[in-house]
Amino acid sequence: MGYRLATVDDRAVLVAGDHYHDVESLSGGAVPSDPMQAIGAGGLLHELAAALDTTTPTGALADVTLGAPIPRPCNSIAIGLNYKDHAAEADMELPENPMVFTKFPSCIVGPTATVEMRGDMVDYEGELVVVIGTEGKDIAAADAYDHIAGFTIGQDISDRPAQFMAKPAHFALGKSFDTFGPLGPWVVSCDQFDDPNDLGLTTLVDGEERQNGRTSSLIFDVPFLVSFLSRIMTLQVGDLIWTGTPEGIGFTQGKLLTDGQVITTEIEGIGTLVNPCVRLSDWS
Amino acid sequence: MGYRLATVDDRAVLVAGDHYHDVESLSGGAVPSDPMQAIGAGGLLHELAAALDTTTPTGALADVTLGAPIPRPCNSIAIGLNYKDHAAEADMELPENPMVFTKFPSCIVGPTATVEMRGDMVDYEGELVVVIGTEGKDIAAADAYDHIAGFTIGQDISDRPAQFMAKPAHFALGKSFDTFGPLGPWVVSCDQFDDPNDLGLTTLVDGEERQNGRTSSLIFDVPFLVSFLSRIMTLQVGDLIWTGTPEGIGFTQGKLLTDGQVITTEIEGIGTLVNPCVRLSDWS
Repeated sequence: MGYRLATVDDRAVLVAGDHYHDVESLSGGAVPSDPMQAIGAGGLLHELAAALDTTTPTGALADVTLGAPIPRPCNSIAIGLNYKDHAAEADMELPENPMVFTKFPSCIVGPTATVEMRGDMVDYEGELVVVIGTEGKDIAAADAYDHIAGFTIGQDISDRPAQFMAKPAHFALGKSFDTFGPLGPWVVSCDQFDDPNDLGLTTLVDGEERQNGRTSSLIFDVPFLVSFLSRIMTLQVGDLIWTGTPEGIGFTQGKLLTDGQVITTEIEGIGTLVNPCVRLSDWS
Repeated sequence: MGYRLATVDDRAVLVAGDHYHDVESLSGGAVPSDPMQAIGAGGLLHELAAALDTTTPTGALADVTLGAPIPRPCNSIAIGLNYKDHAAEADMELPENPMVFTKFPSCIVGPTATVEMRGDMVDYEGELVVVIGTEGKDIAAADAYDHIAGFTIGQDISDRPAQFMAKPAHFALGKSFDTFGPLGPWVVSCDQFDDPNDLGLTTLVDGEERQNGRTSSLIFDVPFLVSFLSRIMTLQVGDLIWTGTPEGIGFTQGKLLTDGQVITTEIEGIGTLVNPCVRLSDWS
């Protein structure tokens, strides 16, 4: 029995249908309210989720604004150019090894947060995001799912000029403006997916489809990434791996984001992010 | 009156002479023991430090092993190629804008931690590290020091092949192996320096001087970096800015680190990191 773990008022909650249940209350204190600790509760979360139909919910989803399910990871690891079609549209060589950068944790916001644009060349990139549930080092690819709590959706919002302003280009800067990391709506545990390595992903802008890919097209797939990264660093409970975006970004289509547009990002079996965009003053 | 803030057994302590004082006890609970919260206590830390000569210390530094003074920043921001002489030795163009990457927080270890090398091309890079004490956005360079708690020393240990394995090179990977971020020995508040923008920095390996620079040679100086970064992201309490390294790295001298060597990194007015190196099995 799987679970959906979300955040309401900075507290971890389990989602069932249209309602949510506070995990600390539900567990009699066995699972901490801090989302960064709750995500490591593993088996307990599964047990709690299995009993949700006999408990009274804390509240209705319609009455609250969800926060990022993982608001402050230790490591927010992002992978660049991880779909062949996207590398082609970006006119960049296919990487022989994962291109690793960061979306700095301070950019992470909730699933319905407003994206604040500080320039005229801001773009969307819908992505599957892996959430680590069990700390691990030197993890074999075959064991990767033992360390993954579940998946969530990320919008890797990118200010294209800032992304490429340093030479050689280091993406962190242009991808870490405040509000550039919408995440959510919840973490869905791995057992909820028929095939966690093949999920449909779409990004729409004002209802127009811009990206439509499948995670089965990842150059470096989820088990490989977990294994590869864990040979460098001990993956921590709550770490995020932003796995990259498929083709269809706005830059190559001449369709960068403009003031008032709404980005809708959907991944099969997880849910939907809905993020309005607002144009603020220039950053530079 | 300034302070030196360190970490003992995961608790924030103030250092006076050869002794340390637990800040939570000292403050009657007004300053939390969590180092990531204590660093934001600003004025209270100054008040506590001013009264240390009349209080009984918690213990002697000689009896404990210090942890990293900032063990888990939200944003661990690193600047590449920020000294002209280092850019020249690395045979890389001078950046027109700061080259921003991350040392992932999981690599951060204490000031006397052992550096675990998983390859034969591991290098040292002594650096001044800025510690943010007051959250801020769109900070003017003239106001930068209002947001800086103090300075500490970082060793930006780098696995050269991993640093450059992705094309274009993204440094995060090769600079974030476990143990690759020795930090400390403490955060020294800004008012402790005659001129915080001109500090001598040396790195020795087994007693042989390899790096000898001054932070006055930074291409992008500390006030500029704080201002520049804060226009992208809200700087958080406890954020780190690794400001880059001067010339003298091992790679260009044919003097990469070997098993059993000891790296000594010193910055004027702060103190010294002493990190032995051990060669473990290959990572790849």
